[in-house]
Amino acid sequence: MNIVIYLYNGLTVLDAVGPYEVLSRLSDANVKFVAREKGLIVSDTHFLKLVAEYDISEIQSADILVIPGSVIGFIRESKDAAVLNWIQKIHQTTTWTTSVCSGSVILAAAGILNGKKATSHWGAIHMLRDFGVTPSNERYIQEGKIITAQGVSAGIDMALFLVGQLVGVEKAKAYQLFIEYDPNPPFDAGTIIKADTETVDLAKKMLTYEAKKDLSLWDTFKNLPSLIKLKNGV
Amino acid sequence: MNIVIYLYNGLTVLDAVGPYEVLSRLSDANVKFVAREKGLIVSDTHFLKLVAEYDISEIQSADILVIPGSVIGFIRESKDAAVLNWIQKIHQTTTWTTSVCSGSVILAAAGILNGKKATSHWGAIHMLRDFGVTPSNERYIQEGKIITAQGVSAGIDMALFLVGQLVGVEKAKAYQLFIEYDPNPPFDAGTIIKADTETVDLAKKMLTYEAKKDLSLWDTFKNLPSLIKLKNGV
Repeated sequence: MNIVIYLYNGLTVLDAVGPYEVLSRLSDANVKFVAREKGLIVSDTHFLKLVAEYDISEIQSADILVIPGSVIGFIRESKDAAVLNWIQKIHQTTTWTTSVCSGSVILAAAGILNGKKATSHWGAIHMLRDFGVTPSNERYIQEGKIITAQGVSAGIDMALFLVGQLVGVEKAKAYQLFIEYDPNPPFDAGTIIKADTETVDLAKKMLTYEAKKDLSLWDTFKNLPSLIKLKNGV
Repeated sequence: MNIVIYLYNGLTVLDAVGPYEVLSRLSDANVKFVAREKGLIVSDTHFLKLVAEYDISEIQSADILVIPGSVIGFIRESKDAAVLNWIQKIHQTTTWTTSVCSGSVILAAAGILNGKKATSHWGAIHMLRDFGVTPSNERYIQEGKIITAQGVSAGIDMALFLVGQLVGVEKAKAYQLFIEYDPNPPFDAGTIIKADTETVDLAKKMLTYEAKKDLSLWDTFKNLPSLIKLKNGV
């Protein structure tokens, strides 16, 4: 089982590590971390570096492809023809093509979500329309062999669903227990729908502040949807 | 806010990355990844490598210390006097000393949980007694400035709780929404208590199989508690 996880500077590490934590435990898993250019990849908050052991030119196929999201770095990837061409090529070979968080915008830019429904992080989901994709607020959405998931935890949930599809629910449940994945956050503010208006407003301010740190990408990103639009779905 | 996350070969990456994803977003966060010897650190499933940018000798203090768990690698750490002495030293300087999963066994071995209650991964929690610690099946337990958490998701939940303590619940909720942490696993088998007997049995077999890959540590680990003991608490 060749599992290919695409890394890029500015990624949200948990978007990659969540699915990795589940998928890498499959008994026949062979996980490859791939980047446009192999080497050290820096996370969105700049403190953690991961190793991408392969260039995209070295990877020709995958059984499972995972595209993680980011605060704003995904915009750079979604404009990079070499990356998009590679994703298109790999997608033709996959059993499952998946994304977490704003990773779905990269899939959309690669043209493989055209005419389909998809989800994304609340700060990026409005961008799916630009690529002929219908945004939907579900936690993860399966469209044929493509699964797009929302933020960090939905990536873990999606991976467990995927493992259930691949090796059966009994084993998937055992992997869940193996890693003791039994979430119960102290607050219930993890989605736009559940969070109160003050929380949404503050999170939007935080996201804007972080996104503005990369001004070269800000022009594309700055049209964050209004609070009301977000609350009512996209 | 100096946040020190200890890395070691064989760690469960999500145990480190879960708290990182939350804590590194604090506006004054300065996160340092530290290992006995700096360099590349390999995860328990061997595919992912992270960078530890500091040797333990280079870090003298921390506001928050995070000790992640592992399938079996934690046993090596819990026998390493240099690591334990360093943890003792850093603990004297912290505002919060925390662990995720079997990381609590390392804290216990360092002597700082002596006479206290603590939790751990279900496969390691029985080992706490060896160090004069009272095991308890809560998801995370605060004892003064020490917080021990269970498996991967409890680490994220614990970090959100911690952020609530540090900067207030309103900001903590906004961070939760920022990363869209709204977990809802497709199965409800994430704890020994909830999982059915077949799932517990299978997960225990998987854990045993993985743990046996490091035979040098297996002798210490092999007394996994019985199913009945696990189900009834420890």
